[in-house]
Amino acid sequence: MNLLEELPDQIHVVEMLPRDGFQRLDEFVPTDEKVEIIDRLSETGVDEIEISSFTHPRAVPTLRDADEVAKQITRHDDVTYRALVPNLVGMERAVEAEVDKVNALVTVSETYTKKNQNRTRDEVLAEMDDIVELAHAHDIEVEAGMGTSFYCPYEGKIDATETLAVVDRVVESGVDEVTLATTMGLANPVEITERFSAAFDAHPGLDMGLHLHDTNGMSLANTLAAMAVGVDRFDSSVCGLGGGVVLPEGMSGVGNTPTEDLVQMLTQMGVNHGVDFDRIEAAAHDVSDRLDLGATSHVLMGGTVERVLETVASGQE
Amino acid sequence: MNLLEELPDQIHVVEMLPRDGFQRLDEFVPTDEKVEIIDRLSETGVDEIEISSFTHPRAVPTLRDADEVAKQITRHDDVTYRALVPNLVGMERAVEAEVDKVNALVTVSETYTKKNQNRTRDEVLAEMDDIVELAHAHDIEVEAGMGTSFYCPYEGKIDATETLAVVDRVVESGVDEVTLATTMGLANPVEITERFSAAFDAHPGLDMGLHLHDTNGMSLANTLAAMAVGVDRFDSSVCGLGGGVVLPEGMSGVGNTPTEDLVQMLTQMGVNHGVDFDRIEAAAHDVSDRLDLGATSHVLMGGTVERVLETVASGQE
Repeated sequence: MNLLEELPDQIHVVEMLPRDGFQRLDEFVPTDEKVEIIDRLSETGVDEIEISSFTHPRAVPTLRDADEVAKQITRHDDVTYRALVPNLVGMERAVEAEVDKVNALVTVSETYTKKNQNRTRDEVLAEMDDIVELAHAHDIEVEAGMGTSFYCPYEGKIDATETLAVVDRVVESGVDEVTLATTMGLANPVEITERFSAAFDAHPGLDMGLHLHDTNGMSLANTLAAMAVGVDRFDSSVCGLGGGVVLPEGMSGVGNTPTEDLVQMLTQMGVNHGVDFDRIEAAAHDVSDRLDLGATSHVLMGGTVERVLETVASGQE
Repeated sequence: MNLLEELPDQIHVVEMLPRDGFQRLDEFVPTDEKVEIIDRLSETGVDEIEISSFTHPRAVPTLRDADEVAKQITRHDDVTYRALVPNLVGMERAVEAEVDKVNALVTVSETYTKKNQNRTRDEVLAEMDDIVELAHAHDIEVEAGMGTSFYCPYEGKIDATETLAVVDRVVESGVDEVTLATTMGLANPVEITERFSAAFDAHPGLDMGLHLHDTNGMSLANTLAAMAVGVDRFDSSVCGLGGGVVLPEGMSGVGNTPTEDLVQMLTQMGVNHGVDFDRIEAAAHDVSDRLDLGATSHVLMGGTVERVLETVASGQE
């Protein structure tokens, strides 16, 4: 019995920087620069890019140019361009923007839903039916992005039955994919294993993804645990930039799983994923420089086979 | 099929700070302070502590007080006190110091062995027989600590057959346990799975451990992969302090798996391990303050359920 026996044949990497990353920044990244960065990310081999969020501009001012970004980027045939939509109004903008897919947000925690969207979870879930109908009428795929699937900033640990009830409900709505999100970055490999296993048991063959934050440093371990039960789609962000939850001081460099660290692990494991490690590594350095982020991932710090061996060799001379 | 099906019943945590950590520092930590720190670590519930190295004082001057440290620490019945021995002279000192166990060093890489010990691997392996004989005559357990089991700073990736040949050889010498060490911190979960699986296939029931460095950020993922094939002993270091290999600039905060991050993961996974998380967290903060290390682990940065929820709650007021 080992981890490698039933790994998925192909892993899909979803780049979150343009939404989860730019959303976290205090400053507005100019539209031109967003477009340049997205165009660069389109050439790395990632499967999908979440390009922005069709949220009300007052709610997330740093992403107020979502419609413009969608218009200006260069679309590649082999990349899925998706956007976050928090409600039906957002979905209407997504149709207008001609994205390939939407990440339709629902949060498992009642308290979080109330505080962030000023609605009940049932209201959000009822609207999911309309979002799916509108999206499918325009050949747009729908992924239900399930925030607080494990921990909530207000309620603490979320009961697994709550998470599974929401999975059941969005599957009923007819979504194409379901993503569990560790909004807080506090989930562990057992919770990951148990919740995905239960979801797959209830819905065999369901297309499931995992959105990881790395607050507790377990995001690569959680990735491995999820792969072992058949999850084949992972959200990550170049430089790890991302996250909407207030974290302790000193965690400013910690957000989503850094894409470059994820891709390094998958590449070295010999798993198919389609991303060019050198390109994603270079893109991470570029983004880190542009946004003055520092070395927020192990790859950025130099923790790769190539750079470590280079360092040793240069020290020998 | 999932990760959790065959996890070991009990994980043994080995604290490496007093050897791998203090060895890495440029400055000599005064003997009194070493003893205080080891005594504090003895009260955290860790199974073993590697208290020092019986290496020639000129080779590792920061550990030149190994004999004194062994004398002055307070021994607890439920803690195994072990020391590194690089050769038979070191083993003689270990007998004198009355340690419970030795970590008898052998490096898989010929080049590394030559450069670090100025001997051939066969010479080191031949001496292993004498070390085991002397140790067992004094009821001291012997673990073969196999450096460069995956990557070597000079040779790059080490062939798995080389690693397995050394496992065979130390088992022949009669060692009680075998530990594979990622000296470079560059191994990935597939390599971990494959090498341990092969070793267990060749030597069913062999007591095996894993010594991880976190250069590539995969040490918790590697821990999980190793646990899934039955490895139940893990070396780690409070604050992650440790490591003898030259790493790229910017990796000064990266060394062994931080014990507090490992223990957080094991605790939350519900695996038995005996370590008190609060005590190890407090010890990590204490060591970080004493040695001015900064926040070199996710736990030290505040990435725990408790601290994140506290932070959110205080932000709400």
